[in-house]
Amino acid sequence: MFDAHDQRFMQRALDLARQGLNTTMPNPRVGCVVVRDGEVVGEGWHRRAGEPHAEVHALRQAGARARGATAYVTLEPCAHHGRTPPCADRLVEAGVARVVAAMEDPNPLVNGQGLARLQAAGIDVRCGLLREQAHELNEGFIARMQRGWPWVRVKAATSLDGFIALPSGESQWITGEAARADGHAWRARASAILTGSGTVRADDPAMTVRHVAVERQPVRVVVDARLQVGSHAAVFGPGEVWVAHALPPEWPDDGHRQRLIDRGVRLLYLPAADGRHVDLKALLMEMGRAGFNEVHVEAGAGLNAALLKDGLVDELLLYLAPSLLGQGLPAFALPAVAGLEKRIRLAWRDVTPVGDDLRVRLRVQREADLEQAGAGPADRGS
Amino acid sequence: MFDAHDQRFMQRALDLARQGLNTTMPNPRVGCVVVRDGEVVGEGWHRRAGEPHAEVHALRQAGARARGATAYVTLEPCAHHGRTPPCADRLVEAGVARVVAAMEDPNPLVNGQGLARLQAAGIDVRCGLLREQAHELNEGFIARMQRGWPWVRVKAATSLDGFIALPSGESQWITGEAARADGHAWRARASAILTGSGTVRADDPAMTVRHVAVERQPVRVVVDARLQVGSHAAVFGPGEVWVAHALPPEWPDDGHRQRLIDRGVRLLYLPAADGRHVDLKALLMEMGRAGFNEVHVEAGAGLNAALLKDGLVDELLLYLAPSLLGQGLPAFALPAVAGLEKRIRLAWRDVTPVGDDLRVRLRVQREADLEQAGAGPADRGS
Repeated sequence: MFDAHDQRFMQRALDLARQGLNTTMPNPRVGCVVVRDGEVVGEGWHRRAGEPHAEVHALRQAGARARGATAYVTLEPCAHHGRTPPCADRLVEAGVARVVAAMEDPNPLVNGQGLARLQAAGIDVRCGLLREQAHELNEGFIARMQRGWPWVRVKAATSLDGFIALPSGESQWITGEAARADGHAWRARASAILTGSGTVRADDPAMTVRHVAVERQPVRVVVDARLQVGSHAAVFGPGEVWVAHALPPEWPDDGHRQRLIDRGVRLLYLPAADGRHVDLKALLMEMGRAGFNEVHVEAGAGLNAALLKDGLVDELLLYLAPSLLGQGLPAFALPAVAGLEKRIRLAWRDVTPVGDDLRVRLRVQREADLEQAGAGPADRGS
Repeated sequence: MFDAHDQRFMQRALDLARQGLNTTMPNPRVGCVVVRDGEVVGEGWHRRAGEPHAEVHALRQAGARARGATAYVTLEPCAHHGRTPPCADRLVEAGVARVVAAMEDPNPLVNGQGLARLQAAGIDVRCGLLREQAHELNEGFIARMQRGWPWVRVKAATSLDGFIALPSGESQWITGEAARADGHAWRARASAILTGSGTVRADDPAMTVRHVAVERQPVRVVVDARLQVGSHAAVFGPGEVWVAHALPPEWPDDGHRQRLIDRGVRLLYLPAADGRHVDLKALLMEMGRAGFNEVHVEAGAGLNAALLKDGLVDELLLYLAPSLLGQGLPAFALPAVAGLEKRIRLAWRDVTPVGDDLRVRLRVQREADLEQAGAGPADRGS
């Protein structure tokens, strides 16, 4: 069904799509290559919401040479009128003879309609080439489309014995400069950076992207159940900031809420059932509604563990430093499990040396016991 | 000085040497290739103490074709009469024209004499080709020759959050079958397996090599300061076993010492200065005197940490399982360090997936503060 040429052109389309890594949200990252007689006649990638889709860029570049050509797209072309007209129609108008898509549109309401429209117009349509790569490129968008909330990636930098800081809280720096810069690259691709009040009060981090050139900063989201973070914290600097809390509206706060609002902070009152914590699932659903695809978590052991316990973490991004601290603060303040069969299972995704440290990425495996506890949504991918 | 042919033949000699990985102790692993006119005419490797050295095997195979040939040896040929006559003399007698050695003999009393003897006989002698590989192959032998005690490798299997067991002690199995088999391969190459009384009492392990075919079992060495391990423990099964303790000879023991001796156990009274613990450095020196090159440590957090604190660990061999336990027993019961600059620094040697787990090997870096504490011998390699 697919030959080596198809592979090569789709790989190119994926590479193009990757150029939108930090900018397309809430849209997916998409690339397109138009090929006529074995020659690339048009290339494009989606840069930013409201700007043309990848197909439009590629078709414009191809011009009349698109007639009879093959278009390689990393995602099923859209069939609906959004901020731009449907790409499926553009492909039909351009007269392409064949469309190869890496994967279907993950939106259950749209899925297959774009391909169907192309087929109805007599175009030879194929789907599924390099699907896995295409899927990984847009995990956040796919997660949001399918379950309503973003892909959640928890980042931590630990010593080899698993500590993120000394007992005193000292943590600067356990990992090296290269790992810290790499961490900022992961921040940059996220729609939001999520942290907790403990981290903010201990380290006063800005939680912005540095070390990497970016056109936009992710939204900072602080979980601060009792609104204990002072309004002068660095995290409340320029840019969009949310604070999720569980303080009932009727509780007096000495003007603190208003000061936050004056600094431009969006306050979200999202109490959990216990009334003391923030409902993290509700917060993530709110992020989903705001169009956030990937959420980058940089927090302490408490919030990390709460997200894990609620079955809300998709991926761990850990930087392992070649050192032993002996004692310290853990990355996850989890309770003991009842037996080894109850441990949180992970699956390796990627192991890469970054400077003197080792970066490991792991997928959190779906656990039957988490589901039974009602914490893991049924549509959570494995 | 060395060309691509030299590289290739030395690589072959190293590969041959590796065949003696599990059997040459107390001797080093050595390989030899004899090459005449670009053609291999003889190959050999040392198999077992008392049997011919690598050079002898290779020269026998080469016969008269050794005349005018080049001999590649992974270690400087011996110049002294041991259990076998000096290999340097054999090379001279065989009439080889050139000898390429990967490294000098690490024994400071011998170093350079073999090469000098060859040179004195008019042979073209070169040294240092693929030195790093040759060094790594015999780290244990080199360590023992240069400082008197073996290379110490500490093995542990941990969850990604750094635990070797649940708080209950349950640890079977955190890592998978492939990692366990790999661990046995590392046991097999060691002269001795070192463990502590806590591990023996908790798990009653045999501490033998299984999952790997071996001709010999490493000596088992148990650190049991107060002689608390019962004489029926599995570790006291067939084969050589040592028990290091700190129980003064005059203390009564209800016949326990005698029962151990009856089971063939060698008792070593090695009290530390505090009188309560075993002097680990003294134990390792005793192992050095017994000709042990590599010591494989599989112990609990206490012994692991004591070895680390005393600056006696050369290498960590860790299997990281893709799971989180939340709470549990650490691999190293180290005290908190006074600040990040006091952490134990490691250097990556090797990162390899083994089944579902990740095997990481790290070298313990020499620390100025460890030396100041008098624990790190000055000749300890970095």
